[in-house]
Amino acid sequence: EEDKGMDNVGVTEFVGTAVGDSVGLVIANVDYALHEKMGIDKRFRSIGILGARTGAGPQIMAADEAVKATNTEIVSIEMARDTKGGAGHGSLIIFGAEEVSDARRAIEVALKELNRTFGDVYTCDAGHLELQYTARASLAINKAFGAPIGKAFGLIVGAPAAIGVLMSDTAVKTANVEIVSYASPSAGTAHTNEVIISVTGDSGAVRQAVIAAREIGFKVLKAMGQTPVSVTNPYI
Amino acid sequence: EEDKGMDNVGVTEFVGTAVGDSVGLVIANVDYALHEKMGIDKRFRSIGILGARTGAGPQIMAADEAVKATNTEIVSIEMARDTKGGAGHGSLIIFGAEEVSDARRAIEVALKELNRTFGDVYTCDAGHLELQYTARASLAINKAFGAPIGKAFGLIVGAPAAIGVLMSDTAVKTANVEIVSYASPSAGTAHTNEVIISVTGDSGAVRQAVIAAREIGFKVLKAMGQTPVSVTNPYI
Amino acid sequence: EEDKGMDNVGVTEFVGTAVGDSVGLVIANVDYALHEKMGIDKRFRSIGILGARTGAGPQIMAADEAVKATNTEIVSIEMARDTKGGAGHGSLIIFGAEEVSDARRAIEVALKELNRTFGDVYTCDAGHLELQYTARASLAINKAFGAPIGKAFGLIVGAPAAIGVLMSDTAVKTANVEIVSYASPSAGTAHTNEVIISVTGDSGAVRQAVIAAREIGFKVLKAMGQTPVSVTNPYI
Repeated sequence: EEDKGMDNVGVTEFVGTAVGDSVGLVIANVDYALHEKMGIDKRFRSIGILGARTGAGPQIMAADEAVKATNTEIVSIEMARDTKGGAGHGSLIIFGAEEVSDARRAIEVALKELNRTFGDVYTCDAGHLELQYTARASLAINKAFGAPIGKAFGLIVGAPAAIGVLMSDTAVKTANVEIVSYASPSAGTAHTNEVIISVTGDSGAVRQAVIAAREIGFKVLKAMGQTPVSVTNPYI
Repeated sequence: EEDKGMDNVGVTEFVGTAVGDSVGLVIANVDYALHEKMGIDKRFRSIGILGARTGAGPQIMAADEAVKATNTEIVSIEMARDTKGGAGHGSLIIFGAEEVSDARRAIEVALKELNRTFGDVYTCDAGHLELQYTARASLAINKAFGAPIGKAFGLIVGAPAAIGVLMSDTAVKTANVEIVSYASPSAGTAHTNEVIISVTGDSGAVRQAVIAAREIGFKVLKAMGQTPVSVTNPYI
Repeated sequence: EEDKGMDNVGVTEFVGTAVGDSVGLVIANVDYALHEKMGIDKRFRSIGILGARTGAGPQIMAADEAVKATNTEIVSIEMARDTKGGAGHGSLIIFGAEEVSDARRAIEVALKELNRTFGDVYTCDAGHLELQYTARASLAINKAFGAPIGKAFGLIVGAPAAIGVLMSDTAVKTANVEIVSYASPSAGTAHTNEVIISVTGDSGAVRQAVIAAREIGFKVLKAMGQTPVSVTNPYI
């Protein structure tokens, strides 16, 4: 696949693409001047770059698996206001590595994971829902949301934001979970039309909370006129 | 209509939908943990939630009528960067109430008002104009723009922002009004491509200023290539 | 052309339109109340207004030529999150002048320049690239990016932001240029999905850096699925 990338694209740094207009790149030796401007720790000679027009949650979850599986660290996670006219975020995630082979491996893992982490993103013209779940949060989730490492983690997103409020309330009433973060159009987002909560707790409780939020969000979004659909396969 | 909502949607909290991909919801007993994260005063057990992909002005004006007509208060008004690829805002407005019946009534009033308050929103591919007018501003307008309660209020919006500058200048030159607020892409908006001014003063003067701004905005936006149209019926 | 504008549009203040849903306007005597709200120096009785749904870089470059050619100053440059569902900025640029004829002349020059400055904006569904180059930066470029006046200047933009990171690294490795500014979704942009760097240095080096960034950005964006195209004619 690397060879294919090189052959077709003619760019050594190109790793691949994935759902959500996601693209993965690596730089073996980041130029020193850029290093400084980007605030990258000097010990990371190489970086992996994961960017997307559509989605921040799916990319953060995919990056979380990538840091678990490779000898890399998360340098930065930035969220753009994008989704190509939709209500949500695009994203830019930078991995730091001492060796370019590690950076490349992280990007490969992340690109492969995106197919799964887009599974519970449901979109229609009126808005979208996003649900994420993992039994053990790692460094990307910790960096993005402040969630405790090694514990179960759930992400609940509703757009327009009104739906996210109701999903959040339903989630925390359904099971004994703790709210890690709460974001809304004027705080914690790039002015997206979303309410986003993340929760932690016992893995069964987190999963139950996420599923209950999905159910009520789905009904309300559908009542706005269309049936929200996933572009891949639900995994929760 | 509540029964119909319950029947079709199967969600007790669902109140209804309206123009602009607006949705109205209520929560009878907001979960305590969420209460805190959202910064809701403890005396409000219930909330009404008005959200939309398209529009903040129409929803604020509708909310203003809703607080006048019901035993509720405005908890928060947030503006997202949205309009589904357009140049403006989406919105999230939270009403606080001691009784869920009051919250529900506020949302019902607001959803009904939206048909009117979208009347002077004129849209085309190149941009949009929005004009609002009321003889007596109430708590939602006060919260959103800092306008004096009980006095006439006018809202003037032009997108792209250049048009809003000209509309603003025309408005304040046309009649003896006072500027309450001025917002532009880098201050006071969620980075929308709008200039937004609000004015107060004698009701005749405010109305005259708004109408003059509408006239010049319409001509310039039309000169950009299309005729801007309202999706409902002009009311000013 | 002024007469034509007046005839068709019926608005004295209308100057014209250009690519990117750009519009140019003038106000001969800005109302004093608005003057203050907009933070315009009192010695500028007249303003020129250049606004656009799509683009900030092209408009800033065009404004730079306009200030060079006329007796005006740049009052403000604001960037909106726009591009009509694309990944980038819209813009609002205000010129100050003592005489309205000067403001009008500046807007006329800027509108005419836009055809050229859109030349190296390459767009496709997945994202866009923008490259700009001038041998001598003037006041608009200085205001927007802090670039030294009178020196060569290059602007390099990639969207989604991941592409911009790679373009930036390639640019600074290709030639001996100095980074003037670095902006990304969470800093220095209106939360666009772009990485934007600007560079200065010897004119040959700046041009070489910009061209190298264009080449690699083009290949990566094309690998995301479509061939990026310019709506006018490349000039670099």
